[in-house]
Amino acid sequence: MDTKPDLTAIAAAHPDHWAKATAIRALTLDAVHAANSGHSGMPMGMADVATVLFEKHLKFDASAPNWPDRDRFILSAGHGSMLLYSLLYLTGYPEMTLDQIKNFRQWGAITAGHPEYGHAPGIETTTGPLGQGIANSVGFAIAEEIQRARFGRKLVDHYTYVIAGDGCLMEGVSQEAISLAGRLRLSRLIVLWDNNNITIDGSVDIADATDQVARFRASGWQVISIDGHDPEQIDAALTKAKASKKPTMIACKTHIALGHAAQDTSKGHGALTDAGQMAAAKAAYGWTTGPFEVPAATKAAWEAIGKRGAAAHADWQARLAEQGERRQAEFNRIFAREVPKKLTATINALKKQASETAPKIATRTSSERVLEVVNPILPETVGGSADLTGSNNTKTADLGIFLPENRKGRYIHYGIREHGMAAAMNGMVLHGGVRPYGGTFMCFTDYARPSMRLAALMKIPTVFVMTHDSIGLGEDGPTHQPVEHLAISRATPNTWVFRPADTVETAEAWELALTSTETPSVLSLTRQNVPTVRTEHKRDNLTAKGAYVLSPSEGKAQAILIATGSEVSIALEAQKTLQAEGIATRVVSMPCMELFAQQDEAYRRKVLPTGPVRVGIEAAVQQGWDRWLCGEGGRDTKSGFIGMTGFGASAPAGTLYEKFGITAAATVAKVKELLG
Amino acid sequence: MDTKPDLTAIAAAHPDHWAKATAIRALTLDAVHAANSGHSGMPMGMADVATVLFEKHLKFDASAPNWPDRDRFILSAGHGSMLLYSLLYLTGYPEMTLDQIKNFRQWGAITAGHPEYGHAPGIETTTGPLGQGIANSVGFAIAEEIQRARFGRKLVDHYTYVIAGDGCLMEGVSQEAISLAGRLRLSRLIVLWDNNNITIDGSVDIADATDQVARFRASGWQVISIDGHDPEQIDAALTKAKASKKPTMIACKTHIALGHAAQDTSKGHGALTDAGQMAAAKAAYGWTTGPFEVPAATKAAWEAIGKRGAAAHADWQARLAEQGERRQAEFNRIFAREVPKKLTATINALKKQASETAPKIATRTSSERVLEVVNPILPETVGGSADLTGSNNTKTADLGIFLPENRKGRYIHYGIREHGMAAAMNGMVLHGGVRPYGGTFMCFTDYARPSMRLAALMKIPTVFVMTHDSIGLGEDGPTHQPVEHLAISRATPNTWVFRPADTVETAEAWELALTSTETPSVLSLTRQNVPTVRTEHKRDNLTAKGAYVLSPSEGKAQAILIATGSEVSIALEAQKTLQAEGIATRVVSMPCMELFAQQDEAYRRKVLPTGPVRVGIEAAVQQGWDRWLCGEGGRDTKSGFIGMTGFGASAPAGTLYEKFGITAAATVAKVKELLG
Repeated sequence: MDTKPDLTAIAAAHPDHWAKATAIRALTLDAVHAANSGHSGMPMGMADVATVLFEKHLKFDASAPNWPDRDRFILSAGHGSMLLYSLLYLTGYPEMTLDQIKNFRQWGAITAGHPEYGHAPGIETTTGPLGQGIANSVGFAIAEEIQRARFGRKLVDHYTYVIAGDGCLMEGVSQEAISLAGRLRLSRLIVLWDNNNITIDGSVDIADATDQVARFRASGWQVISIDGHDPEQIDAALTKAKASKKPTMIACKTHIALGHAAQDTSKGHGALTDAGQMAAAKAAYGWTTGPFEVPAATKAAWEAIGKRGAAAHADWQARLAEQGERRQAEFNRIFAREVPKKLTATINALKKQASETAPKIATRTSSERVLEVVNPILPETVGGSADLTGSNNTKTADLGIFLPENRKGRYIHYGIREHGMAAAMNGMVLHGGVRPYGGTFMCFTDYARPSMRLAALMKIPTVFVMTHDSIGLGEDGPTHQPVEHLAISRATPNTWVFRPADTVETAEAWELALTSTETPSVLSLTRQNVPTVRTEHKRDNLTAKGAYVLSPSEGKAQAILIATGSEVSIALEAQKTLQAEGIATRVVSMPCMELFAQQDEAYRRKVLPTGPVRVGIEAAVQQGWDRWLCGEGGRDTKSGFIGMTGFGASAPAGTLYEKFGITAAATVAKVKELLG
Repeated sequence: MDTKPDLTAIAAAHPDHWAKATAIRALTLDAVHAANSGHSGMPMGMADVATVLFEKHLKFDASAPNWPDRDRFILSAGHGSMLLYSLLYLTGYPEMTLDQIKNFRQWGAITAGHPEYGHAPGIETTTGPLGQGIANSVGFAIAEEIQRARFGRKLVDHYTYVIAGDGCLMEGVSQEAISLAGRLRLSRLIVLWDNNNITIDGSVDIADATDQVARFRASGWQVISIDGHDPEQIDAALTKAKASKKPTMIACKTHIALGHAAQDTSKGHGALTDAGQMAAAKAAYGWTTGPFEVPAATKAAWEAIGKRGAAAHADWQARLAEQGERRQAEFNRIFAREVPKKLTATINALKKQASETAPKIATRTSSERVLEVVNPILPETVGGSADLTGSNNTKTADLGIFLPENRKGRYIHYGIREHGMAAAMNGMVLHGGVRPYGGTFMCFTDYARPSMRLAALMKIPTVFVMTHDSIGLGEDGPTHQPVEHLAISRATPNTWVFRPADTVETAEAWELALTSTETPSVLSLTRQNVPTVRTEHKRDNLTAKGAYVLSPSEGKAQAILIATGSEVSIALEAQKTLQAEGIATRVVSMPCMELFAQQDEAYRRKVLPTGPVRVGIEAAVQQGWDRWLCGEGGRDTKSGFIGMTGFGASAPAGTLYEKFGITAAATVAKVKELLG
């Protein structure tokens, strides 16, 4: 930064604004001091921008933080969480009490180190892993467009604002987000870039020389450059941004840790806890009250801002009430994440048909058949793929393409952007009113991982459609063949990993994924054709149990074969051979380990009794299987696994199954070996 | 594309060039036809660019594919593998026989669906997951600069060429690569963009409207736009690119599947197997020989290209021979991935000192102490961090910063680009002569995953320094606290996951990581201080065994506590309590499950005998542990786990360990419960 800002002059020019913005800075200093950890500099640098945004532009009502038509405010630079917490406290969000501010980063407080969705209203998404917020915001803006197209401006008419730092813009996912938003012309998306030229390692220049203005323009954005400490410039830029037909990036030149001894340094990024320096900064601000004390007049001014949207909110409620009853109910239903009652009947009809006709198709095709009957009755679904539409089977006939010229479109061509897709889907769920699902090859779970984890952490039911889920992918080879990705998703808390064996289980998995309210789902689907194994129709969703006896043994079981997905038919084939040789064998299908683990012990023991030898079969690594093989009443010496021990290879799928020994013959041999 | 190209005119304008380029197209059509799968369009579209590159610019000698001073050619658009295989076959790389081309994508062939590093010389890196090649290339170019600064132009003076498609440029990692390359002014890096406006889902426009020329310029690149079918324009652009002081992107406007019925369509991206259309395309090319047949004159012309670099190679060998013996030996040593002999003594001295002084420090600090003694004796190490240098403890005093003005610098500020860092490190290893390591928080394994997997698949010893490896990170909260990431890396084949308990084990882990030739390492290191547990000096690298008895029981063990990293000291504390109560307890430290799994059964049984109850302790999810608890001679009912069952929380580390029950007291209770 060329020149040191003259705080006295800035304060004198806009005294009311200064008092409000300083409240954020002082609270930040106090909270970080009390916690003895945290990030002071960013809230101090962006306080002016946030103050103008909340005072003059953001449509919100602090007393009704979940108003569906509010503007969304996303703190992508999540380490600056005290900016958000200060704003929520100052404007009077009931949950964000002063006590919470005082307990910043402590056990049980809602004021976590980084903003955690679900901790308090007003936290629209969990941020901290950089780039996620800006990538979520694309989904928020898409959801707004889709809802507006469906319900009209009277009910849906809001903006998504994002504060992003240099870190967010260096993360690759930001490019996926920016380019997608530019292509889709998401004009309601406004990104405020905290252009302070500081990261943890030093000045941005040591690692980056990107002309961010040119970069955003190259992706079809409007860009406005301003002094991020001048309230008039901030206000004018926001006004201009709202009127744009393109998404807008406002480059806000700021001083990190404004007014502190650490201003404009990487030290300013972190926890500024020195008491003397803190006192000096407050003195420079003209801030004279004690720790955590905001002068009454300033607090009152902030609370007035918190109430500024109350009238608009009331008007909106009146407009909603004017809608027909069915329209109101539908609007409320989708925001409550409730599915239409007829979903169960629709799924059941498909299951029945599949059991009767027993198609031999890939489960990705099964998934498409489910979507073909589900999408017409769930208008809130929004499908998509990271440029693998024909392979992921994610597009059904009734979904138009979401584009600037077709905002009613419910299918998104995300481009080759798995990470951006996952993050955007999370944003859509968080926005509410839409239920996104998106596809890629399962191996590219790797690209989407950071956002898949956040879906689990945030407890939101994003649906990841992961096809080509094993060596069964064939010739594309090991770069495209997942072997560890089932284990990866299963290791992640609060994630349902479904690996259905046929169309029936696929339908059941989809039913669970679509009715989930707090858990994301990963659908692991085959490229290759598999036979129908559920040939007897049952109304009960057996997949909901996680595992169940698919084929009982003839007589008391000597062996239990446990399999998932494409390997269930291998288990059935092995069972036939074994029973022909007099070895009573049970086949357990285990489409969802997480749900099975949640069953009571009696059920688990019924499915996996102690005694018989156990063999697990899955074309993937063994990690995650030992619990069901030698644990849960199993025995080390009486269990085995048929699967992968390393990466795959490039060859036709059938060859690979043979070469890697994932066959009925190998299963039979393993059982016999274990029986001794 | 606005107009259909006139093949006859193009062929007539440059008949020799046309014959050579057509050989690539014909071989591609034949191989894809034979395999009945693959990607025809990209090789057909980029054949002209590749032909000019190989004929007039690329410095290589087909008979000596590993010549260290060769130019590197990276096919980032790896699905177009037949482009590379055709080039290797045509120019006469001995391994790339016609039989291999005929067996494209078949079991046992070196011609996998996507190029696999290690399958054949000339394949510089494994590509297919999009964006990886272009991100690797940054590492290739860095390695070249560093080597040139060290050994001079006489020995090191080459370029890195990349062919990247729209998919590569849409992936976020490409932005990380481009912006890093721009900042570091990697002028020897030249990217050829296959600008064909086609992806799998349709025309690029449906998902992207990025002005790529402006985007690259915004990151400090030179950009040249050409007709990718005009050999003169291609040649001129390459000449200009080589002279640039910036990295160069050449935007090559091309027709995907040139000359085929599927030209300029997304169908052209995939496998073009229709016999009639294939015949028509060949006719349009004027190609009259049978399948896989290249006219002798054309093959000879290509083979001459393969020999073009032989003289330069001989000159280079002569220059190498002119160097002093020690310099030659050093040059050869680092390219052979051999470590200096004194490494072992250095590590042992540090181990001895640590055992004697028993510091209570974080293992990330232990890691820094190792690097402080290792970096001075291993001039090939190149450290770095994704903007967490002070937290990852990756920088030592003797490493200068690698920048345009300091090419001898051995430390890289990668910026907030975990993925780009991991991919660049892979590129450096692949280039040879440098041994990179790079740090971030362990939780951000998620961002680096796609490249970490490829390191394992490629069998290259990249070192990932992952600090802040558990809830011990504290107040930053669950977004930054890994719980599933040990399981994720352990699930990945050919990956060593080291979780050292103290400075001694950290030194042993580094020794293994630095001497590894075929396996990448993940170092999982604490933020918080931990006591030294290896207080008795042993010259043997006990970590090499994966697990070992750290503290034997007093008398025959009734319980075995197995722990890793920061939890080993908890196990020792629990052992004390248990033994005081008369329960003989053994403590096993298990810093590397993968290496333990590789030991023979006798050793494994010695460490983990059948009989005693077993309790695993690790501040992470249980997945991956069951093998050591109820497997390997253990029993389901006699084993337990002290760890995490969900995500962490934001609070001081000590509080979190208490609240989540990862304590000596909980361990003691669990042992007693199991003993009944």
